[in-house]
Amino acid sequence: MIMDDLFARAKVSPVCLGLDTRHEYLPQYLKQSKMTVGEQIYEFNKKIIDATAEMVACFKVQIACYEALGLDGMACYSKTLQYAKSKGAIVIADVKRGDISSTAKQYAQGHFSGDFEADIITVNAYMGEDAVSPYYEYLDKKGLFVLVKTSNPSGVDFQDKLTDGEPLYLTTAKKVSEWGKTFIGNSGYSSIGAVVGCTYPSEFTKIKELMPNTFFLIPGYGAQGGTGKDIAEVFKGGICGVVNSSRGLITAHKGKTEEADFADYIAIATLDMKKDILKWL
Amino acid sequence: MIMDDLFARAKVSPVCLGLDTRHEYLPQYLKQSKMTVGEQIYEFNKKIIDATAEMVACFKVQIACYEALGLDGMACYSKTLQYAKSKGAIVIADVKRGDISSTAKQYAQGHFSGDFEADIITVNAYMGEDAVSPYYEYLDKKGLFVLVKTSNPSGVDFQDKLTDGEPLYLTTAKKVSEWGKTFIGNSGYSSIGAVVGCTYPSEFTKIKELMPNTFFLIPGYGAQGGTGKDIAEVFKGGICGVVNSSRGLITAHKGKTEEADFADYIAIATLDMKKDILKWL
Repeated sequence: MIMDDLFARAKVSPVCLGLDTRHEYLPQYLKQSKMTVGEQIYEFNKKIIDATAEMVACFKVQIACYEALGLDGMACYSKTLQYAKSKGAIVIADVKRGDISSTAKQYAQGHFSGDFEADIITVNAYMGEDAVSPYYEYLDKKGLFVLVKTSNPSGVDFQDKLTDGEPLYLTTAKKVSEWGKTFIGNSGYSSIGAVVGCTYPSEFTKIKELMPNTFFLIPGYGAQGGTGKDIAEVFKGGICGVVNSSRGLITAHKGKTEEADFADYIAIATLDMKKDILKWL
Repeated sequence: MIMDDLFARAKVSPVCLGLDTRHEYLPQYLKQSKMTVGEQIYEFNKKIIDATAEMVACFKVQIACYEALGLDGMACYSKTLQYAKSKGAIVIADVKRGDISSTAKQYAQGHFSGDFEADIITVNAYMGEDAVSPYYEYLDKKGLFVLVKTSNPSGVDFQDKLTDGEPLYLTTAKKVSEWGKTFIGNSGYSSIGAVVGCTYPSEFTKIKELMPNTFFLIPGYGAQGGTGKDIAEVFKGGICGVVNSSRGLITAHKGKTEEADFADYIAIATLDMKKDILKWL
């Protein structure tokens, strides 16, 4: 099952490289080429995948960056997923979809098969279990990361509201853990994982206690302020998730080169991040 | 501003026709044509738009049904939005996006300009205000419907949790109403509307009291169980939203025709729905 595979890779490198690619990140030589913006971004992503596939647990592709560019962007999104998979990488589609059952079925088809097929997708459970259950039939091969506690400043607006004496994110944590029980693989981790930001390390500890079989997608490292030390706190009992960095890695070449060697800088930043996390363990 | 326009149209007909189109809904003559599935669905949508544009306040297009079909589906999605707009219709893109600020900016660009430009989009605020504020700069022309209380059975899983002595959906209602205050148009309605299902009419009354300047997108009518009488309860003080029906309208021809006259049945169902709502007012 997919989380067994992801866990095995995370033990070597817990880095999740986020391909939240924007056109302004590209080096001049690509921007000046005759390709469409989507094709340019695909070239950029491809070179990053080539340079870093062996150093990361997985790639996360933020679909918003591709939707922003319309059909050209969606073609780039599709090709990026397919290229990463052709290199044997695990791909997380960061789509954060959440809708009623009949609609979630459509999203499941869209993101677990065909042009946009990914290995794992992120989902928003604010609409309750029937917004998540349509994905269950795919979970022998595929996986989910359900939003539990996000890394953004306004995440507290609703997620930290006290419900029955505890913050809502703990209620969500319990529900997600419960839903995942039917899908636990050999590693002890369920195909239903959770998104929990590393920008709130003490909250993370409480969440982990409630979710012993849950593997985590951990945003917030780097550009959003999370550090290797924050991650060390989370990984105290062993590696239990992948740590995402997007901007912090894929803009590592900015100000240093505008040529095809840009991916070297991104590879170095990726290795630095890996070391920054592993040195504390 | 867009809600002024939508309110004016809703007073004539509060029907929002949902183009949550699936291939199985199409009549045989279209399914047997040589076009791609996406092209077939576009033909289907186009005929529905032609037949009903004058009878509805707006169209709502559920993007999940198009994402399910990959790139072919996304091309169909784009063409459907553009066609509806070319007919002078207001188009709601039912995308329910919700993500951190920098990502929400990308979604705003994607759904308020270019290939996927819509007039209003649905958003999920579970991540807090910074998941919504990136859309504000568009609100002189565009609009939002933020999820407050959804119509699905599991909607209660989180939305009904008591926070500070009140269900979370009321907390959300207050926040959304607050965010909307800067964007109130001549009609008294804000460019930030709310999604509240009609399957819980008594809850709706409480929500309305907290959101005097909010226009509503109301799902749950028809296939999901809501009736004209439920809507009458909501519209007691006057029309304050648009009522969506998708399956209930766009499958009205099923079992009756497999030919090009299918849209007549959909038009009749649309007029019936309009009457079913207006007769109570």
